[in-house]
Amino acid sequence: MELIVQKFGGSSLADAAGVMNVARVVTDTYKSGKDVVVVVSAQGDTTDDLISKAKELNPKPSRREMDVLLSAGEQISIALLAMAIETMDIPVCSLLGWQAGFQTNSTYGSARIKTVSGERIRMEIDKRNIVIVAGFQGLCKYDDITTLGRGGSDTSAVAIAASLGAERCQIYTDVDGIYTADPRKVKTAKRLNEITYDEMLELATLGAQVLNNRSVEMAKKYNVEIEVLSNLGGIPGTIVKEVANVEKMLVRGVTKDTNVARISIIGVPDEPGVAFRLFGKLASKNVNVDIILQSVGRGNTKDIAFTVCKDDAPAVLELLDDSLEFLKGNEIVCDTAVAKVSVVGAGMETHPGTASKMFGALFENDINIQMISTSEIKISVLIDVHDADRAVEAVHNAFMPEDSCRD
Amino acid sequence: MELIVQKFGGSSLADAAGVMNVARVVTDTYKSGKDVVVVVSAQGDTTDDLISKAKELNPKPSRREMDVLLSAGEQISIALLAMAIETMDIPVCSLLGWQAGFQTNSTYGSARIKTVSGERIRMEIDKRNIVIVAGFQGLCKYDDITTLGRGGSDTSAVAIAASLGAERCQIYTDVDGIYTADPRKVKTAKRLNEITYDEMLELATLGAQVLNNRSVEMAKKYNVEIEVLSNLGGIPGTIVKEVANVEKMLVRGVTKDTNVARISIIGVPDEPGVAFRLFGKLASKNVNVDIILQSVGRGNTKDIAFTVCKDDAPAVLELLDDSLEFLKGNEIVCDTAVAKVSVVGAGMETHPGTASKMFGALFENDINIQMISTSEIKISVLIDVHDADRAVEAVHNAFMPEDSCRD
Repeated sequence: MELIVQKFGGSSLADAAGVMNVARVVTDTYKSGKDVVVVVSAQGDTTDDLISKAKELNPKPSRREMDVLLSAGEQISIALLAMAIETMDIPVCSLLGWQAGFQTNSTYGSARIKTVSGERIRMEIDKRNIVIVAGFQGLCKYDDITTLGRGGSDTSAVAIAASLGAERCQIYTDVDGIYTADPRKVKTAKRLNEITYDEMLELATLGAQVLNNRSVEMAKKYNVEIEVLSNLGGIPGTIVKEVANVEKMLVRGVTKDTNVARISIIGVPDEPGVAFRLFGKLASKNVNVDIILQSVGRGNTKDIAFTVCKDDAPAVLELLDDSLEFLKGNEIVCDTAVAKVSVVGAGMETHPGTASKMFGALFENDINIQMISTSEIKISVLIDVHDADRAVEAVHNAFMPEDSCRD
Repeated sequence: MELIVQKFGGSSLADAAGVMNVARVVTDTYKSGKDVVVVVSAQGDTTDDLISKAKELNPKPSRREMDVLLSAGEQISIALLAMAIETMDIPVCSLLGWQAGFQTNSTYGSARIKTVSGERIRMEIDKRNIVIVAGFQGLCKYDDITTLGRGGSDTSAVAIAASLGAERCQIYTDVDGIYTADPRKVKTAKRLNEITYDEMLELATLGAQVLNNRSVEMAKKYNVEIEVLSNLGGIPGTIVKEVANVEKMLVRGVTKDTNVARISIIGVPDEPGVAFRLFGKLASKNVNVDIILQSVGRGNTKDIAFTVCKDDAPAVLELLDDSLEFLKGNEIVCDTAVAKVSVVGAGMETHPGTASKMFGALFENDINIQMISTSEIKISVLIDVHDADRAVEAVHNAFMPEDSCRD
């Protein structure tokens, strides 16, 4: 029988009505003759409530105990959803991460899945049970509970789909698919029928917070077809797969990321090894550097600017102050009032006009570009954060005038 | 090093202040040079909150899923207590029931412990960790989570103490020990220094809700010394052990149980096999019958009365109506406005005056006795529920006038 994996997030399960709604979606799929494995997150605010309980006792609790605490959230969800399905007289069985066979490394708080044995899941499916699995959690080699970090339930769902060879992994959300831009901000934003893994990865990284990044990487690796769709049911969503139907449309989406800080170092010695030492040091501290810009040397100095995640900025500034002898006396500027706006699309590199079209749209709207970064399938610019929403709309309209969009 | 097992109930852990208080008691014991294993219940109202969430979705959820749900409560407790202890810079490690090696049978909702392997606990103790174990929960042979039923955390604590050969199992509660009567009701009630397992069992069964009955049975079986003491710390509590110092005092406690229903069947045929068929049927439905009273036959009929737990009464009445042919047409009366008042004490059977002293005290207070039951170490009477508190006080004062009590 064909197997479908369905994942529901915390907002879908926030209250009894939400849980009953999910139970209906799941049992409808089951009644259509499919085997169904459901992956769920913790209900609504449960995770935040548990975190605040923890912080009340200990501002810096160990990650190991935090994982014990937070994994209780999904445990509550799986039991409640199973109970809701029981009222519909359909056989059901809930499984915790370790019962479902999720083995992870022992990086508490942001563990990586190593294997999903899936034996128990398969056994319950064979009994014709709907199987409800707690997302976000696993077990490490020390027999300790681990969590995958926020958004990890998407990854759990894809991992199960890969392990059991599911026909499709459906990610139910409160939007009805992937859009070319944030539909709450950009009126002309269109829902996509299909998108490639790579495009989705760029969109996810760049702040379109629909799908967790790791889950897309894993789906790409194991060729799991993902469908992002509305938990209200009824209409098909956006399919994420290896080769998407791109035909007419060049650009898949325009995104904005405001979780960015730009750090500039003015007057660095213009000699070999400077960039190596600087970015080597940052890498050793696990700081992800995104856009890097280095000026052409003037005299015997040059300027280096780069962007990092806003949360990492204080640690980076400390590092620059403390440990880099050759930076002593340099002027270091940190700007957090910036945003990264990007266009993503697989066909982009073969269309030379993309960059100029984007820059033109920004120019027409009097928006200044501070930095530029390009990859095979995206172009990003760093701009003033106050211009961000306007920039997204301008760029989106340049690439996707209302009538030219395919649906 | 000597090992102490300490158990804290949900009311001790109800809020952050309670958790910090428990952390202090536990770390004080650790700092005194002991190995410490702590067993905890779910915080305050967590269990009730989870039950009401379940009932909102399903009035009759399966016991399996209920166990998945409720065991999340202790999971939250162990993590929070561990985090509180972390702030005191003492090494600590929390373990769920299955991690601690609790193997149970598969009677979801009221499972019985089969073994506690204790390997992981021992490993963590050897690392000099304080070990926090989730009470009330285990794992059955199907690798499913089970719970031991309400009050099961006491049993978890005693099981660990037995398995690891602990010096003592301390049960912390909101009273400071076992009393000769409910100290909130009877002013002259005295705290006991020592009590035997058998006496404690009678007291527990009879409604002195300090210690879970199964935990006392297990402690007796494995000869684990229990201490019941106040979670505020400071003073020694009551020791429960095989041979207690009984010398001067005959009666250990006077208790009241209002969770009783009396069922009377009038005019049963006076022929052999009637009681057998009646109580055999009740036993087959898992109904525990407590006091049984059968009248002397008059003519060719007799009367039978017995008491059951109030919750079982509707099922018993249904059974009598439906399946017992020889009762057809008999008058059946169910009275739930009754209470059982009992005196408990190990030396009782060798002191013939005990019963008459009890009955005398009730007579002097104009309290009518409906039924009487005796065992080696207790005498119980069934009376009108409205007389219950008065009866406890009268009987208590008869046996323990204020100046004659030892402390």
